[in-house]
Amino acid sequence: MADLDGYAVDLGGTKLAAVSIVGGEVQDVLVRKTRSEDGPDVLVRDLAHISRAIGYTPGAPIGVAVAGKLDDHGLWSSVNHAILKDLDKLPLVKFLSDVLGAGVVALNDTQAAAIGEYRYGAGQGVPSLAYLTVSTGISAGFMLNGQPLHSANGMLGHVGAMVSRKGGRHCGCGRVGTYESIASGRAIEAMAAEIGHGDLSCGAVFEIARAGESWAQKLFEDACAAIAELCANLAAVLGVERIVLGGGVGMAEGFLAGVRRYLLEEPAQFRPDVVPAGLGKHSAMFGALSAAVGKGALS
Amino acid sequence: MADLDGYAVDLGGTKLAAVSIVGGEVQDVLVRKTRSEDGPDVLVRDLAHISRAIGYTPGAPIGVAVAGKLDDHGLWSSVNHAILKDLDKLPLVKFLSDVLGAGVVALNDTQAAAIGEYRYGAGQGVPSLAYLTVSTGISAGFMLNGQPLHSANGMLGHVGAMVSRKGGRHCGCGRVGTYESIASGRAIEAMAAEIGHGDLSCGAVFEIARAGESWAQKLFEDACAAIAELCANLAAVLGVERIVLGGGVGMAEGFLAGVRRYLLEEPAQFRPDVVPAGLGKHSAMFGALSAAVGKGALS
Repeated sequence: MADLDGYAVDLGGTKLAAVSIVGGEVQDVLVRKTRSEDGPDVLVRDLAHISRAIGYTPGAPIGVAVAGKLDDHGLWSSVNHAILKDLDKLPLVKFLSDVLGAGVVALNDTQAAAIGEYRYGAGQGVPSLAYLTVSTGISAGFMLNGQPLHSANGMLGHVGAMVSRKGGRHCGCGRVGTYESIASGRAIEAMAAEIGHGDLSCGAVFEIARAGESWAQKLFEDACAAIAELCANLAAVLGVERIVLGGGVGMAEGFLAGVRRYLLEEPAQFRPDVVPAGLGKHSAMFGALSAAVGKGALS
Repeated sequence: MADLDGYAVDLGGTKLAAVSIVGGEVQDVLVRKTRSEDGPDVLVRDLAHISRAIGYTPGAPIGVAVAGKLDDHGLWSSVNHAILKDLDKLPLVKFLSDVLGAGVVALNDTQAAAIGEYRYGAGQGVPSLAYLTVSTGISAGFMLNGQPLHSANGMLGHVGAMVSRKGGRHCGCGRVGTYESIASGRAIEAMAAEIGHGDLSCGAVFEIARAGESWAQKLFEDACAAIAELCANLAAVLGVERIVLGGGVGMAEGFLAGVRRYLLEEPAQFRPDVVPAGLGKHSAMFGALSAAVGKGALS
């Protein structure tokens, strides 16, 4: 990975992050809270600000990974309105070009992460993989026979919007019983609040689970079981044999082990190899920059 | 479609079919019951027999569409063992080459159907589509940005093995609560038998539903609702905007209308355009022959 140089920005539901990458190594990382309530212009200005703060100047390679739906016209929309509020066909790529320069390349964050893990991380050497992020929301990116999958409407990979056999709650995407309504950080926090444990972060809920409290253990176990079910679904739909698990929830202590445990209840043909993200929090950054320098162009 | 000439064979769970296609029009159609209980050699010999009976001679273009899982090594396995019995890595492509000649091209039937509908049927002019067959089993084939999706392990498209929010029954694939355990012809017949209406075909159950019997109406409605849920899942996972519905159950009277009705309960972004197969029962035949003459080579 010694030949990757430039900048990458991640525009997520809860935070913005910018990194500089030199010789394939992450140098500086700058993180700022997403102020989505202040409108997209503030968001994009914040993005430009943190990019410049770590050394970006127009003309340098820069890739932007964004949560939500980014279509082939560069229009950005939210899929789950509880996570990214009221975004409907915002001309994000134009906004980004205005503040960062015309060379900016933007793509969905999970698709970027799949490219990153495939080229530089835990997906090296496998023909087909999914990168599954379990975080504020849940989505996936796919590499099939070495090619990134991509749909013109930007919807591809919103696997958190599929329904689970264990589901019953309303989801911010409008469906009922989705994986995102069971296993996303947002849902876990909401469910904890509903049973009288408000104002806890998902991380705090998981800590309480590890300390042995049964209500928190149930939320943790239900999330692991739902993600195992989702992994088996992805093996069935796309034939992926490896799933790289990332995201704050996916990388939480014990979560991967829990998913693997529930996956053992599935028949062998629906049991992909689930592995931790090799690039940690930076999978999407590597993929976005790789796309920007022309190594991960979407088919 | 005037330029398609040759032969195509469909190897399904309940029947074998061979067609001759001349100038893009189906000429002869020969159908024989699948005798899977007699072993694969009988199956392949039957296939060769019906192909020759409609005029095939070695050297002519011939495409074979097969149910189940066909991997890149030409090995054939069943996914749902209740439908295709005990198939485990049978060297199908070798068997077919032995009896039909070295030029034979074999691919999964639903992937073939997606290619067929995309090039010659109801998928013409759309960038991305799924062909969804609801028949003895349930599976899908995908065209994304004009390219057929394909996984090396042959598992891709087995969407009937995904689980439904409405599911609870054991499926022949080993999972619990799959779409195939609710909406496949095999499942509908089994459920009818369990409530005292044995020995009825799925078609007969649907006829009784149309005549107004509530037990049969419930099976019909549950199947339509499950397929609508599945279509919304496919919009989420792959961003497909059109789904071509085929198969004996999918093409049954009132079924498409039922699926569309339940789809209205889904949010707009998960409501793909569901349309009837333009090539009727022959979608897979057109796709298989098209692949054989080099127009649908898999990426």
